[in-house]
Amino acid sequence: MSTSGITRRRLLAAGSALAASSLLGQHTQAHASVRERDISHWDLSTDALIVGSGVAGMAAAIEARRAGADTLVLEMQESRGGSSAMSGGVCYLGGGTALQKALGFDDSVEAMLDYIVAASGPHPHLERIQKYCEGAVGHFDWLVANGVPYTQQFQREKEFPQETDNSLYYSGCELNHPFRDIAKPAPRGHVPGVPGHGGWRLMQALNDTAEREGSKVLTAVTGKRLVQADDGRVLGLQVMRHGKLENIRARKGVVLACGGFIRNHDMVKHYAPEVAAVSTPHASPGDLGLGILMGMGVGAAAIRMHQAMIVLPTYPPERALRGIFVNRRGQRFMAEDYYYGVVGHEVVIHQGGVAYIITDADHAYPDNHFYPHIAQANSIRELEQSLDMPDHALQETVAYYNRHATQQADPLFHKHADFIAPIVKPPFHAWRMDASQDFAPILTFGGLLTNTDAQVLHASGDVIPGLYAAGRTANGLPQAPYMASGLSVGDGSFFGRCAGRHLATRQ
Amino acid sequence: MSTSGITRRRLLAAGSALAASSLLGQHTQAHASVRERDISHWDLSTDALIVGSGVAGMAAAIEARRAGADTLVLEMQESRGGSSAMSGGVCYLGGGTALQKALGFDDSVEAMLDYIVAASGPHPHLERIQKYCEGAVGHFDWLVANGVPYTQQFQREKEFPQETDNSLYYSGCELNHPFRDIAKPAPRGHVPGVPGHGGWRLMQALNDTAEREGSKVLTAVTGKRLVQADDGRVLGLQVMRHGKLENIRARKGVVLACGGFIRNHDMVKHYAPEVAAVSTPHASPGDLGLGILMGMGVGAAAIRMHQAMIVLPTYPPERALRGIFVNRRGQRFMAEDYYYGVVGHEVVIHQGGVAYIITDADHAYPDNHFYPHIAQANSIRELEQSLDMPDHALQETVAYYNRHATQQADPLFHKHADFIAPIVKPPFHAWRMDASQDFAPILTFGGLLTNTDAQVLHASGDVIPGLYAAGRTANGLPQAPYMASGLSVGDGSFFGRCAGRHLATRQ
Repeated sequence: MSTSGITRRRLLAAGSALAASSLLGQHTQAHASVRERDISHWDLSTDALIVGSGVAGMAAAIEARRAGADTLVLEMQESRGGSSAMSGGVCYLGGGTALQKALGFDDSVEAMLDYIVAASGPHPHLERIQKYCEGAVGHFDWLVANGVPYTQQFQREKEFPQETDNSLYYSGCELNHPFRDIAKPAPRGHVPGVPGHGGWRLMQALNDTAEREGSKVLTAVTGKRLVQADDGRVLGLQVMRHGKLENIRARKGVVLACGGFIRNHDMVKHYAPEVAAVSTPHASPGDLGLGILMGMGVGAAAIRMHQAMIVLPTYPPERALRGIFVNRRGQRFMAEDYYYGVVGHEVVIHQGGVAYIITDADHAYPDNHFYPHIAQANSIRELEQSLDMPDHALQETVAYYNRHATQQADPLFHKHADFIAPIVKPPFHAWRMDASQDFAPILTFGGLLTNTDAQVLHASGDVIPGLYAAGRTANGLPQAPYMASGLSVGDGSFFGRCAGRHLATRQ
Repeated sequence: MSTSGITRRRLLAAGSALAASSLLGQHTQAHASVRERDISHWDLSTDALIVGSGVAGMAAAIEARRAGADTLVLEMQESRGGSSAMSGGVCYLGGGTALQKALGFDDSVEAMLDYIVAASGPHPHLERIQKYCEGAVGHFDWLVANGVPYTQQFQREKEFPQETDNSLYYSGCELNHPFRDIAKPAPRGHVPGVPGHGGWRLMQALNDTAEREGSKVLTAVTGKRLVQADDGRVLGLQVMRHGKLENIRARKGVVLACGGFIRNHDMVKHYAPEVAAVSTPHASPGDLGLGILMGMGVGAAAIRMHQAMIVLPTYPPERALRGIFVNRRGQRFMAEDYYYGVVGHEVVIHQGGVAYIITDADHAYPDNHFYPHIAQANSIRELEQSLDMPDHALQETVAYYNRHATQQADPLFHKHADFIAPIVKPPFHAWRMDASQDFAPILTFGGLLTNTDAQVLHASGDVIPGLYAAGRTANGLPQAPYMASGLSVGDGSFFGRCAGRHLATRQ
């Protein structure tokens, strides 16, 4: 319930009301398409024009070039790699990858598919999931062949991938109820085997490969409007370069791979109002929704624009998961051992943006933990009062949890027995998860509707010839709640490749 | 958490997976726009062309005609009135309408605005809300002057408006926590004073007025594609009539007022997947999203496409609200005295689509009630077992509720004291609210982005000259959770009028 006591005046003062006249395009000046006849000349010409140098764009470039296309990548920033380079670089892959096999894990295409389908929100893109799962083993080999390094090390603890150089881990909810009973669990998070952000290493490898094989990259060039023939075919792109408009001909097609719109706050308020209150986006400043707006400018369907990845990291250390999460009313609302991407979704979408982590002395976070430590008390009753919760609510929640925890049971949410322990040893602690205050890196899932070849579809359902989208410019595998790390980079790189290959075959 | 144990095979069997290749347009064949030069001739010509004969369309027609424009209304169905005619016909109006005054209620523009803003989801359209509240007194007079009948009768009980001929009632959450403390409550649901569906009476009045004053209406004509000049101006519409395409020139503009898309299941799955499982839509078969798709075909922004009105009626009789609502885990999740539009949203979006109403013998629904009566027992313990709830969960919830109910208190959700009573007298009862099974009439809120004159905005933020949208073809005042009956018909009729007036002034 979003019924906090906001008065109109407070709302006006906060500037959080939405004026219809606020221009979505003020960051971007993305406009309607330009007709071919309104273009006096072409400044540049290529076969494949790829907008964005993140993982989707570079994967598209590599494949287009290998299929014989002249390939040009445009990046609006001075530096390359987009949000992919800032990410963990995890790809969600399985079905028996070389790394899974080397580390002794058994997996199948079917188990992977069953997990993704069951863990997705309603109406996932089944055809695309199937193509992705069937291609996952080959996609891992492709990453290796293009220079992405992996170690033969498995990460057992729930941990940020960038804290170690391990390369395989359970990056989702495979071991959680009910998924562990739906699909045989396997670790599918494949992460470059380097300490620090694997995304940077991933992008270094793909960028090097692309350039070595002849793709060209221009930075500080911003896409503005697609150029269309009278029959609707996309022929090129009008861009801003060195402060003036230039026209770039794309003989075989344009791939929009320039990310989502999490850094365009006007767009977030318009399209995804429920997530607009979430604090600091952790994403490239280029995630302004430009590719989505350019696609909409030629009538493309942009779907599921309300969904986003909202991370409220609850581990490491995983010991705190032996505590409980409660909402402002002191009620539990989910199994605490879920992937933190799901925690973020639950707290922001279903619990009004605020929740608390309650632990006893044995399972507390360290002093310098990420979330603010807002209460400590020698009894749950005192803790409840410090948190200003309804009379006896937290006490009853903890008593109920403890009564079953002594039997290693969690009848409400079926948390894994490894994370069940009675909350008994004082002092008791409370940490606050507040999406509007605390670090909550997010990206948007909504984007252009595409088919399994990454071709963009018009609102009518027809293919727009010559136009492709991949990564978060498209709506793909990532759906809310985001059930595993690696689905976005995995989907972006995989369908980026599909775009590059399909485009190169066009006459 | 949408984590029910769906396997891939079950999902495939149910056909609920989403194929990207499914054509959004298969119902509608709405396509990209047509260029003026591709039109060989105009079959018909008018000043104001209005698509849809619901409340927004007829309000637009009346105002355009009064401002001197030749006005033509197109309706795709054989019969007129769209979903408006099937609705209760409630308009949410206040600030001191003639009817509020006649019945002795004090209200102000500010109180009405404060309520709507506080009760809306995040980032409401403040400029439009303000214009609407400031115009509400005049809008009521306009309805009366156009022949909509109202009785000077106030409805005190929580009741469906169509069960009586009363014309004023609390149609939202004005008396609920926290709104009663944010904005001075007043009844603002203005409903035609006839037994049965007020919407039919409302549409009869507006239709009669429009025709008497010279608007023309053609039925069985379906809009297909907007006709645009090279500079983007909308000049007319290509339609399907008697099985062939015709071109209609609109000298001053086109108003898209052809409803939302709740009857286009492909669109619901694509754009609003979270509500796709809700059963039988209660709406005109014409709500196929055609106007929204035609707008998208010229690059218009369609926003908040994921939101819908989901009704799970919990009253009448209001005595059952003295019971409690619990989710599948036996937890309470909201104040039971909220407007049923909010109940639907809570259950579908936040509780996985299923919840239970628990009452004692004194507050039970009648035998023939709408929701299935699924359990009866002489103790809460037995009831809990019948419902297959976690061990002791419901027992603890009821014990906690009862302990405070004896003090007329509800520390968890602050239900109004009028609806608080301990659950003590056996037999105890459970009714199931299951959105996928039970009657849940819904309409979509997402639609074209418009300004306060109802002009449609391009994805870039620019006005599309000559194009207007109103009613559920536009994104307007209704936002999830839908906090009061009458916001949709009120918004549609009000901004339909704005569209008609603005259009008529165009050169």
